[in-house]
Amino acid sequence: MKIIFLLLFFYQIGPAKPVLDTTPNLIQFVNPLIGTKKMGHTFPGATTPFGMVQLSPETNNPPMFIDKKYNPEVYQYCSGYQYDDQYIIGFSHTHFSGTGHSDLGDFLIMPVTGKIDLDSVEKNNPDKQLGSKFHHNTEISQPAYYKVTLEDHSIIAELTATDRVGFHQYTFPQSDEVNIVLDMIHNIYQHEDKNVWVFVRVENDSTVTGYRITTGWGRTRTVYFAMQFSKPFKSYGQKKYDDFTYKGFYRRFNESENFPEMTGKNIRAYFSFSTEKDEKIKIKFALSSVSSSGALKNLEKEIPHWDFEKTKSQSQSKWNQELSKILIETIEPEDKITFYTALYHTMLSPVLYEDTDGSYRGLDQEIHISEGFTNYTIFSLWDTYRALHPLFNIFHPSKNNDMMKSMLAHHDQSVHKMLPVWSHYANENWCMIGYHSVSALADAIVKGTTDIDLNKALAACINTSTVKYYDGLDYYMTWGFVPEDKSANSVSKTLEFAYDDWCIAQIAKKAKNNEVYENYIKRSESYKNVYDKYSGFMRPRLENGQWKEKFDPLDTHGQGFIEGNALNYGLYVPQAIDSMIEMMGGKDKFSKHLDRIFTTVLDEKYIEKNEDITRDGIIGAYVHGNEPGHHIPYLYNWTDEPWKTQERVRMIMNSMYSSEPDGLCGNDDAGQMSAWYIFSALGFYPVLPGSDQYALGSPLVKSALLSFENGKKLKIRTTGQGKNNVYIQRIEFNGKTINRHYLSHAELTDGGELVFYLSDKPVRKKEEMK
Amino acid sequence: MKIIFLLLFFYQIGPAKPVLDTTPNLIQFVNPLIGTKKMGHTFPGATTPFGMVQLSPETNNPPMFIDKKYNPEVYQYCSGYQYDDQYIIGFSHTHFSGTGHSDLGDFLIMPVTGKIDLDSVEKNNPDKQLGSKFHHNTEISQPAYYKVTLEDHSIIAELTATDRVGFHQYTFPQSDEVNIVLDMIHNIYQHEDKNVWVFVRVENDSTVTGYRITTGWGRTRTVYFAMQFSKPFKSYGQKKYDDFTYKGFYRRFNESENFPEMTGKNIRAYFSFSTEKDEKIKIKFALSSVSSSGALKNLEKEIPHWDFEKTKSQSQSKWNQELSKILIETIEPEDKITFYTALYHTMLSPVLYEDTDGSYRGLDQEIHISEGFTNYTIFSLWDTYRALHPLFNIFHPSKNNDMMKSMLAHHDQSVHKMLPVWSHYANENWCMIGYHSVSALADAIVKGTTDIDLNKALAACINTSTVKYYDGLDYYMTWGFVPEDKSANSVSKTLEFAYDDWCIAQIAKKAKNNEVYENYIKRSESYKNVYDKYSGFMRPRLENGQWKEKFDPLDTHGQGFIEGNALNYGLYVPQAIDSMIEMMGGKDKFSKHLDRIFTTVLDEKYIEKNEDITRDGIIGAYVHGNEPGHHIPYLYNWTDEPWKTQERVRMIMNSMYSSEPDGLCGNDDAGQMSAWYIFSALGFYPVLPGSDQYALGSPLVKSALLSFENGKKLKIRTTGQGKNNVYIQRIEFNGKTINRHYLSHAELTDGGELVFYLSDKPVRKKEEMK
Repeated sequence: MKIIFLLLFFYQIGPAKPVLDTTPNLIQFVNPLIGTKKMGHTFPGATTPFGMVQLSPETNNPPMFIDKKYNPEVYQYCSGYQYDDQYIIGFSHTHFSGTGHSDLGDFLIMPVTGKIDLDSVEKNNPDKQLGSKFHHNTEISQPAYYKVTLEDHSIIAELTATDRVGFHQYTFPQSDEVNIVLDMIHNIYQHEDKNVWVFVRVENDSTVTGYRITTGWGRTRTVYFAMQFSKPFKSYGQKKYDDFTYKGFYRRFNESENFPEMTGKNIRAYFSFSTEKDEKIKIKFALSSVSSSGALKNLEKEIPHWDFEKTKSQSQSKWNQELSKILIETIEPEDKITFYTALYHTMLSPVLYEDTDGSYRGLDQEIHISEGFTNYTIFSLWDTYRALHPLFNIFHPSKNNDMMKSMLAHHDQSVHKMLPVWSHYANENWCMIGYHSVSALADAIVKGTTDIDLNKALAACINTSTVKYYDGLDYYMTWGFVPEDKSANSVSKTLEFAYDDWCIAQIAKKAKNNEVYENYIKRSESYKNVYDKYSGFMRPRLENGQWKEKFDPLDTHGQGFIEGNALNYGLYVPQAIDSMIEMMGGKDKFSKHLDRIFTTVLDEKYIEKNEDITRDGIIGAYVHGNEPGHHIPYLYNWTDEPWKTQERVRMIMNSMYSSEPDGLCGNDDAGQMSAWYIFSALGFYPVLPGSDQYALGSPLVKSALLSFENGKKLKIRTTGQGKNNVYIQRIEFNGKTINRHYLSHAELTDGGELVFYLSDKPVRKKEEMK
Repeated sequence: MKIIFLLLFFYQIGPAKPVLDTTPNLIQFVNPLIGTKKMGHTFPGATTPFGMVQLSPETNNPPMFIDKKYNPEVYQYCSGYQYDDQYIIGFSHTHFSGTGHSDLGDFLIMPVTGKIDLDSVEKNNPDKQLGSKFHHNTEISQPAYYKVTLEDHSIIAELTATDRVGFHQYTFPQSDEVNIVLDMIHNIYQHEDKNVWVFVRVENDSTVTGYRITTGWGRTRTVYFAMQFSKPFKSYGQKKYDDFTYKGFYRRFNESENFPEMTGKNIRAYFSFSTEKDEKIKIKFALSSVSSSGALKNLEKEIPHWDFEKTKSQSQSKWNQELSKILIETIEPEDKITFYTALYHTMLSPVLYEDTDGSYRGLDQEIHISEGFTNYTIFSLWDTYRALHPLFNIFHPSKNNDMMKSMLAHHDQSVHKMLPVWSHYANENWCMIGYHSVSALADAIVKGTTDIDLNKALAACINTSTVKYYDGLDYYMTWGFVPEDKSANSVSKTLEFAYDDWCIAQIAKKAKNNEVYENYIKRSESYKNVYDKYSGFMRPRLENGQWKEKFDPLDTHGQGFIEGNALNYGLYVPQAIDSMIEMMGGKDKFSKHLDRIFTTVLDEKYIEKNEDITRDGIIGAYVHGNEPGHHIPYLYNWTDEPWKTQERVRMIMNSMYSSEPDGLCGNDDAGQMSAWYIFSALGFYPVLPGSDQYALGSPLVKSALLSFENGKKLKIRTTGQGKNNVYIQRIEFNGKTINRHYLSHAELTDGGELVFYLSDKPVRKKEEMK
């Protein structure tokens, strides 16, 4: 009886094909199309949790530059796909999820019927891409599965993936002229110098290998591939778009047809077939950062068969296992979709970055073996240290431990001896500011989820935080602040360096290194050096110590902040919130400052049409569409008005997230935006990563069952949950009322039951809450 | 007494610093400058026997193209150095020896005093190169040692090398402003697209690593390096000459000064020092095809110290050991210099191509380990199968065995499944025609100097000789000849395919594969299909079987031959000389044909000013400056006038070779020209590689002692040797007169004594010779 009950409980039937185990079918609640409209920058294609391959359709490929000027059109194509587009130009194997800048798009595959014109893509003319019209009514987007009809060619495209291998299945009409194009030119954020080198070998009548080196966000990026067709091609060929003067002795060959070596900078290859009606041609396409033979081994190990359904089912089962770490019930059905899609989006980066034998290309462009850990890449740390890595510390501590070790390996390979700032595919791209690896490390160390060597980690943090030529750090170390006339965005840098230094101090404390602790605690107080008590704002200073003139606390440009303004970004002192509040005039004044953020109506001139701070992601002057303010709604907890935190977070969840394709109000930023939602929906948030505390908010879920790697479970319950019942009357933890606004990591992961008593009336005084 | 005698015998004192063992000092007779004037294309710098590093000065760097047209000026700079130039632009680490096309020139180092202007090199203006005036009177060029004064900077430059590491020693004047430039842009045969990618890391204040990918003769060529200075630099910097539109987030750094990452396409770096008077700064510069760490390991393993003299002495000792395999006495002292320099030139390629751990980058761009052999690269096979590999089979059979295995590895890595045609640095550059690897293999197999698997070798030969899209091979296999209207140089190709096929037949015979033997023997008779009995010449045919009209047997262009004409190249049937002679009208007629070759005065219109067939390398219509006729002087042996062979080879040795910088009459072609000299000077020549026979000529040496790897020795003696005494009266081998014009390989390497009785009177009838 018990077993049957459990089976019934876990085995939910949904529209997606059920997986053949007892894991609940949660992928039915995931809609990867959320965030593909407007600026979410997510991708709808097939991938596994933290998988290296993201096999996904692309709908356009605008050039990054027009007449050597940045083309703002390119920004919306960070992940290659925009929901409102009507053409698919092919399916490529690597995509960022939600980033605010881009790269990747490796190895675009496009199946076509009828005569092909490879040249049509050449001029990056969107109307002339080698693609096909499609409609969303033929589109199915699920975790690890994507399907669409390519209408111009009457081809049904289906995609799935394992960790390192993309699996394509194309169903063709009857045709004597079918071609599958392998476009080695295609890049996301394409520019004419982006392809550094392309090397392709047609190994036999159904296997192709090669690699590509590109220079873009990743300055020296090399990706190898191995590609197998389920059916031998009849013939093949290439077209090269290089204007080299020198072809050497290759001129004696007709390289364009059936010549098995294709080498140059810009190559587009095709493979020709005849097909019967409804004939399926499948492609297994493996990646490697190491070698073509590595890619081939990955292919053979991960998919040693041609059963598309089997791979799809296995990879979807992986998703269900990951998603089932949080089982929720919600009042509104669409909230479940928003929640599980957000949870899905938190597992798309960092991504696995090693071959099945553990080898990978490191930052030094050397081949390394991940001894004692699994190597990951794509560290968007300015975003992800805030809530994504803290989320991993709860639900994926082992993986996060691997990620910490991957970051230390990066440090070891770095010629600067720095931990990653924003790294991907053996490259440091230096995007954004700070050195937030130290926060991710501190968070894991303080929460006890990592077994890294403390002294090694501390040394890496010290190295990183003392590289003088990095981003104003020399001035910061000398003067306690970054001068705006020496290094732009100086206040943001000063505030974040100070927070990061507090994190380093926490690691030093754990490592029992008091000297380093004292030094970094002192550095962590540098936020005081950019506070102008006369204006009441954090404000840029010059090298001579004077405040920069012409100060506008609402302006996001040229005022010492990056992607934010003094009003909101100026509150970035998570390591010393009480001190900051005191410095800024006490709790009441601070609370009013927070109110002003949420209620000021920002003038249009302060809002970006494109990029990070768009109207969609703004409430008053609060910018939820970007990261620097993500802790702000929780700051009321440090004033006498925690009920405003409860109100704000529920408002943000309801207005800034939805279950529609435009359901993300800004870039998902490698999962940070979604991680904010997951935490907040469960009722708590890591305002200070590197500490063991979570600030309590107001849960959106009706109930939740959290399963941890330690085998323990936490049941979150609510009473009175409802759209307007956002205010907490009482919190009970394991049967005891708690009279505080935080939970510790140890409490949480030790499990038990957490009950939120909700109503539509705020508890205005702290003492009222029982 | 005996020991002292031997010491006196072997220990000759010469101008070069004597080496501290009992090996005779033969490097004193080597002048690497021979061939550096005019078209020899040799280099004067420092290298070890078959070493991977060729550290050598370069005197100019003309662009390969001007206004997208080939610049004929570039041809004389195949090895980077021309004797008549007055400026040295730096010292780079890789050079071909004697080739007729070029590449390499990796990692140019130039030390300068005073203010540097990196831009001065930019426009490839020879007057503005970043270099220095020099004079030959300050120049010392020896095996493994080069010295010159850089007059503009008052710097004495000295170079030596181990197998994988170049060792620089610069003696500076007192200066506060000394820079050592690492020019990553410089290439031999430079063109604007040649640099594909450059990656440099300044690891610490005295170590630099990195790599470069170039596309040139080698289409995808990657070389890694590790560089160590004996003294820390004070500062460093770079200048980048790329016009990229995208610099990414690196824009926030000042990359030009003291920034340890340098990445792009065209980078010139400098390292700054202060120096005392006569202070020496040394650089160890290691190469690897695998990785920077591989280069660093090579460096540490091969030169774990800073003792320049020690390395020089050890590497010169290696040369003496190699050179002492042939101890000669000559009548004229300068002949000894010509001989030992030629012998030196036969040991400059192929070159070692693997790290100290046996790893190397293969043709598939994958990293391989040379299991059971040492890997070599630079196979200029159209040249070297003729006499260089046969020479190796006598004096370096173990190395040649490694080379054969390197060729088989190339085959295994080739997507075409072909043995090398002309390969270097993990690239097939497809230069020239035929598939002469099979000849080198057959020669080693027939002579018993290799332990390669016969069936594997045979399979590789069959694969190679049946690649239909290769150079007219499809037509050749179908029709027995290459039609000129389908594939140019068709007669040369037909003749060489036929010879190569005979070689494959010899391997099949050894492998006891009669079917393959018969097939390839039949193919080897294809020379008959291009013989026009009416004109008496080999002559191009068209696809329809007709002879091509407008036939000029003296023209080297458009007449079916490559770098040769019907008169001389038409005699290329070494596998069936008797049949050819019969086909061409019998011995007397053939002898007259040979006479005509040597006595015709070629009109200027047939002679090239530049490139392969220059006046310097021509006797009558005989072209010694290029390879296809190298067997011709020996062909009189197959007529009734062998005395003409004796006369001709002595004349060629005396007129086409000398001990001066212009002592080579044409490209040394990776040692083939020199190998011809070594054989001929010893009195025999491998007219038919793949057979075990050497045709006898007329030795130039007075005596010679040949030492073989089997421990045996052959003493060659002459009686009556003299400038005019070129005719053989009698040959005695191990005490017995031999009445034939050949020796077998087994006879030769079994050792003993070979005596040539010479006089100034030819023996006109065969029977006169006793």
